[in-house]
Amino acid sequence: MRIINFSAGPAMLPESILLKAQSELLDWDGCGVSVMEMGHRQPKFQSLMEKSEENLRSLLNIPDNYHVLFLGGAARTQFAMIPMNFLSKKNQAGYIVSGLWSSLAYKEACKLKNAYFIGNSEQDGFKSVPVHSAESIKSNTQYLYYTPNETVNGIRISKVPDSQGLPLIADMTSCLLSEPININDYGMIFAGAQKNIAPAGLTLVIVRNDLLNIIPSEPIPTMLDYKTFAETNSKYATPPTFNIYMANKMFEWLYEQGGVAEIYLVNCEKAKLLYQYIDESNFYNCNIEVSARSIMNVCFHINKTYLEDEFVEQAEKQGLFGLKGHRLAGGLRASLYNSMPVSGVKALVNFMQSFAKDHQ
Amino acid sequence: MRIINFSAGPAMLPESILLKAQSELLDWDGCGVSVMEMGHRQPKFQSLMEKSEENLRSLLNIPDNYHVLFLGGAARTQFAMIPMNFLSKKNQAGYIVSGLWSSLAYKEACKLKNAYFIGNSEQDGFKSVPVHSAESIKSNTQYLYYTPNETVNGIRISKVPDSQGLPLIADMTSCLLSEPININDYGMIFAGAQKNIAPAGLTLVIVRNDLLNIIPSEPIPTMLDYKTFAETNSKYATPPTFNIYMANKMFEWLYEQGGVAEIYLVNCEKAKLLYQYIDESNFYNCNIEVSARSIMNVCFHINKTYLEDEFVEQAEKQGLFGLKGHRLAGGLRASLYNSMPVSGVKALVNFMQSFAKDHQ
Repeated sequence: MRIINFSAGPAMLPESILLKAQSELLDWDGCGVSVMEMGHRQPKFQSLMEKSEENLRSLLNIPDNYHVLFLGGAARTQFAMIPMNFLSKKNQAGYIVSGLWSSLAYKEACKLKNAYFIGNSEQDGFKSVPVHSAESIKSNTQYLYYTPNETVNGIRISKVPDSQGLPLIADMTSCLLSEPININDYGMIFAGAQKNIAPAGLTLVIVRNDLLNIIPSEPIPTMLDYKTFAETNSKYATPPTFNIYMANKMFEWLYEQGGVAEIYLVNCEKAKLLYQYIDESNFYNCNIEVSARSIMNVCFHINKTYLEDEFVEQAEKQGLFGLKGHRLAGGLRASLYNSMPVSGVKALVNFMQSFAKDHQ
Repeated sequence: MRIINFSAGPAMLPESILLKAQSELLDWDGCGVSVMEMGHRQPKFQSLMEKSEENLRSLLNIPDNYHVLFLGGAARTQFAMIPMNFLSKKNQAGYIVSGLWSSLAYKEACKLKNAYFIGNSEQDGFKSVPVHSAESIKSNTQYLYYTPNETVNGIRISKVPDSQGLPLIADMTSCLLSEPININDYGMIFAGAQKNIAPAGLTLVIVRNDLLNIIPSEPIPTMLDYKTFAETNSKYATPPTFNIYMANKMFEWLYEQGGVAEIYLVNCEKAKLLYQYIDESNFYNCNIEVSARSIMNVCFHINKTYLEDEFVEQAEKQGLFGLKGHRLAGGLRASLYNSMPVSGVKALVNFMQSFAKDHQ
């Protein structure tokens, strides 16, 4: 019996993908081995990797002057790779800090190189989009960095920041493929897989060619050098093969849903359903500015906050899973990634209504 | 129809593990979600991680003064992490180079810090164990590094090098859990998962407490700092959850086989079967010194080398997969990791006999 999974990540996957992976788990496509047991240089696996890249390129209209890289491990390594690859001691990077993840990326950049704030909403508890403008960009700035969707506090920056022609780097771990984007707006995009793409252990990087011409000021670890992956089609070391296989299934699934533009409409509908109910209710509240509200991670509270633990407990009994807020933010959170059907959100609203009624 | 898989890695997994993973793929242990869909901080997943660690500790008798870390990504990142964590500009490390992997580790150490050879068998084409002795250890040496099993040329260093009390660091990617070891001989051991442990995308690190007291001479990326993982029970970033789940299944499977001492006997039997046939044959040959021969990766040639492509092709038709040698070494290679049953090796020898007969 499958439950409805609102986890912020690792997150739910479409049942049809899991069923397909299940049926192929001992024998992938007539090979007589699981995809997990196949060498990454076998022609069959190589063509899977190529197909994955093609599918992603097509879903996001990625132009030819961008590389698509498949990296192993967590997206958090990017917080170091970005300054190490793109900054020297003489220049700096501007960060828009709108939540935990951009804050951690900023700190890592400061640890290794030089970075400064273009905007920072920490003082208001990350409840709004930080004020940021192109005027704040200092000289010797090499790139601008931001996180369009912050999972912990549920903050979305929907307008692409004006980077004045400098490379804009975006951590899209929790929103890549959830809404249409114009790749040309970015110098680089990266995303950990475990929200909208695949099981944890894979990080996707989309990077414009010219950024790879930057020569780091000192030697950097080969495995932290984007060129290593660009020059070897991500096969310098063994890539996380099963995760790539699952990612490709997700890309194909997304096609079946009509692509990114279509899923965006569904994502908006899901978020609207939930925020609207919260705003209309006198039992729940969401204290995030309306224009800054994430469509992927809906963070909210019960007015009587002492009821939140009971809420989570009773929700689980009703088959609604993963509604506890992030340990640093508290409260409640429903993550509505691509795989979450509208019916899942409706079930949540129904439960919220009956919980409210029982505890008014 | 499953085939017999001699791939060097990603390598075969025991069928019983795949069957169990398959049955749980949509609903792990009655949770109503796949293990891939579960947050890594959920109590159920946390207890799986604890159990994995306990099982590994027990299989290898890991003492309490060693940390067990679960890292995402490929083992190759260790080539940089080791010098970055343990070396300053004032000291150096000694490397025993016995094949491609130790050679690459040495080069990465030289790129980032200072390293020198304790021994190097490159000149003889990596066909023997490099001559190495404690006398070669220079002053200011912080650690010694070696690779007990080299997959590309099939070289094994079975005797633990004398490190004169310095921390000995071993890349056991292709041999961890295949033979009994004394953890106390080592300062640190690491292993990529895709040979004897789990699908690609996980790296295990076993590191002695005191090595984590070394303060790096300059700031290092947080995700490349062993302390990050030691202080957070490997949950600083999202770990590769599915791979850890599979690793635990492998640990449990290994218990069922009688543990490491038992599987070592089986591994020796398998390697003996194959080397003995090769040595007795006048059709095949193995030009590696007998005392240096790997029990995990048996590299060999056909005397008439032009027949090797046909050998691989015909073997595949007989359901024997992955016998082509590494692209840098050529020839033929049969990898006999823990999951390979004796019957698989017997089937290979049978095929080799009939191929030899047909092509004498």
